[in-house]
Amino acid sequence: MANSLSFSTVPGFRFSAVPAGIRKDGRVDVALAVSDAPATTAGVFTRNLVRAAPVVVTAERVQGGVSRAILVNSGCANACTGDAGRRAVLDSTAAVAKELSVPVEHVLAASTGVIGELLPASRISRAAASLVEGLEPAGHREFAQAICTTDRWPKVAWAALSEQAEGPRLLAIAKGAGMIHPDLGLLVPSAPAAGHATMLVFLFTDAAVERTELEQALVTTVDRTFNCCSVDGDTSTNDTVLALASGVSPAPVSSERLREALFSVCDELARSMVLDGEGSEHAVLLRVVGLGTDAEAARVARTIATSLLVKTALHGRDANWGRLLAAAGRSGVGFDPGVARISIGDILLVQNGLAVGSNADQQATAVMAQPTYDIEVALGEGPGQARYWMTDLGHGYVNVNATYRS
Amino acid sequence: MANSLSFSTVPGFRFSAVPAGIRKDGRVDVALAVSDAPATTAGVFTRNLVRAAPVVVTAERVQGGVSRAILVNSGCANACTGDAGRRAVLDSTAAVAKELSVPVEHVLAASTGVIGELLPASRISRAAASLVEGLEPAGHREFAQAICTTDRWPKVAWAALSEQAEGPRLLAIAKGAGMIHPDLGLLVPSAPAAGHATMLVFLFTDAAVERTELEQALVTTVDRTFNCCSVDGDTSTNDTVLALASGVSPAPVSSERLREALFSVCDELARSMVLDGEGSEHAVLLRVVGLGTDAEAARVARTIATSLLVKTALHGRDANWGRLLAAAGRSGVGFDPGVARISIGDILLVQNGLAVGSNADQQATAVMAQPTYDIEVALGEGPGQARYWMTDLGHGYVNVNATYRS
Repeated sequence: MANSLSFSTVPGFRFSAVPAGIRKDGRVDVALAVSDAPATTAGVFTRNLVRAAPVVVTAERVQGGVSRAILVNSGCANACTGDAGRRAVLDSTAAVAKELSVPVEHVLAASTGVIGELLPASRISRAAASLVEGLEPAGHREFAQAICTTDRWPKVAWAALSEQAEGPRLLAIAKGAGMIHPDLGLLVPSAPAAGHATMLVFLFTDAAVERTELEQALVTTVDRTFNCCSVDGDTSTNDTVLALASGVSPAPVSSERLREALFSVCDELARSMVLDGEGSEHAVLLRVVGLGTDAEAARVARTIATSLLVKTALHGRDANWGRLLAAAGRSGVGFDPGVARISIGDILLVQNGLAVGSNADQQATAVMAQPTYDIEVALGEGPGQARYWMTDLGHGYVNVNATYRS
Repeated sequence: MANSLSFSTVPGFRFSAVPAGIRKDGRVDVALAVSDAPATTAGVFTRNLVRAAPVVVTAERVQGGVSRAILVNSGCANACTGDAGRRAVLDSTAAVAKELSVPVEHVLAASTGVIGELLPASRISRAAASLVEGLEPAGHREFAQAICTTDRWPKVAWAALSEQAEGPRLLAIAKGAGMIHPDLGLLVPSAPAAGHATMLVFLFTDAAVERTELEQALVTTVDRTFNCCSVDGDTSTNDTVLALASGVSPAPVSSERLREALFSVCDELARSMVLDGEGSEHAVLLRVVGLGTDAEAARVARTIATSLLVKTALHGRDANWGRLLAAAGRSGVGFDPGVARISIGDILLVQNGLAVGSNADQQATAVMAQPTYDIEVALGEGPGQARYWMTDLGHGYVNVNATYRS
């Protein structure tokens, strides 16, 4: 399932990262991605009503359809920081724009960290020159590391957009391990600013893609990947997905190929984030089928995926299917429990709403020891289906989040 | 806040409990409550689509408006057990009805335990004679203990329905510590049977109350108490609240007095269940105010109360108000984050959507060390408000629920 394809660069993009003193621990905490050519740009942002200042400013700038750079910090979400938070985004992106000699509107921003603390823009401005000096085509590894917070590993995925070795390619970089329950869409940029930790995803391709095509492909892909994954059910104030297509590569890319590649990298990153969920040991691909509509199936999937009783059972490798069915039953979607069929991996546990037997439970326990496995919940014969990346809930989650600010 | 009133009996009611071999640990696991006179009866039941056999049968029987007994077991939910599960309820209640010489339709049933295991009715039938023999007016303590599962303490509350010492009284008994997120209503008894652990509440009064009055008062009270409390967000397949009014006491009780008394005991039991939530250390009364309608306020409250990030922050005694506001922001209810005001106890943390300062955070930490405290989230100037009992999430929850069936 993992995407093992890898390149060392995307032609026309350069990356850097430095410690700017945003984090208290002195780690590298500010990262910059730059496109040498003006890049066609699309973005989707958290639909949480409480949105961080960088989300509001970047959603406005993405309306222009073109950008040159993305400035990202960890250690501070710059959310619920009012007018001062907005000024901090304007000032820090202006400092980077000046060093790059590009319009400030072409510099996008994203932040992750604690809500309610103001971004110290002057520290980023002071680091702007060294950020720009350090830009390198192969700097994406340092970029991916710098934006991590509670992540145990940096998240990078690649896809080729052509059969040819020198054809355009797609690089995807993500961070996210907690406050992961994205609900992303195109933002109306007049929304009020306000907002914490987060999912950030950045997509870079040297292919030439029209703005409308890029935006539509991004929205469709995000709906089927990041909007169908959850670590803890909490939608962040800062979730941001940005896609930049520089057009540096002359080779044509079909719409179908673009969408396949986007799905491939985004699905891999969703799986990686869920597997890296705070305290998590498993990434479980939940399939809900047999309902009237896809929306109904998605609602059932989201209810099961966020159930504490299901998540703790997965952590304990306990094939407690009653919790799956009980969660489906409180989802608000109508179905007949008497026709329910539930499998974990290849092990059938429930048929016609009744237990198959305790031997099946034991066999399922072996499946549940794997880092990644499937669960299928069939609730009828309808065409509605959903696919959802969920994870278990263990002690690590409590450890990380009961002491996050201390 | 705790209800310290206590009586030793409710005239006309007797209780007993025995070990019947339902639980593997040999503990007392079956309990019986009997009204010496036919009692006016009302009940509300889980609106989970997946409902245990005892819920389905009892919801049917409560339609008759009169009962004589409640048979309760722990150790087995008898949910997702199909036709055999229903027969087990019919058989076990029939055995008790025979010993009591009352119509089987007057014997109600409730179960709590693992989903998917069939109730061993024959063990209860064999215990029926000793259950009836053991009935005592002061046996409610044993009854309350027998129905506990992961509860750390039995839950009993009392209210007087008259100023007179010998006037009618109200006894309320509950169990519940996990799978607590009740969504209770009057059931249409034709719903399909299917169904786990649970909230069970039993209310006994010697007052004379008309059926319609009792049902309406129960529905109103439950909507304001049990339907506004949550341990883990998972609505059980077995949640049941039954109220029996025997009319043995001749003293009249006003409608207002009845409702006050019902609210008093149910609110106290909701607080006690939430404080006793699996792994919990706190019962927090969350008030959400200032929205357009009470329903909007309730939706915001439910979203905050079930947020893993909020619950782990409460566990860590961290006044992380950003998580409260972020949860409100993903609730689907519209408000302006720029007017938000948040207090923990008497400590104001946020005004006009911005932090008051870190000193306030430290003061709030002292409030958060208490077993029970208040949080108020004001999101505007509207009349809509809600009141919700929530709790923290700690390691104990993971311990109990990752190993529940092992």
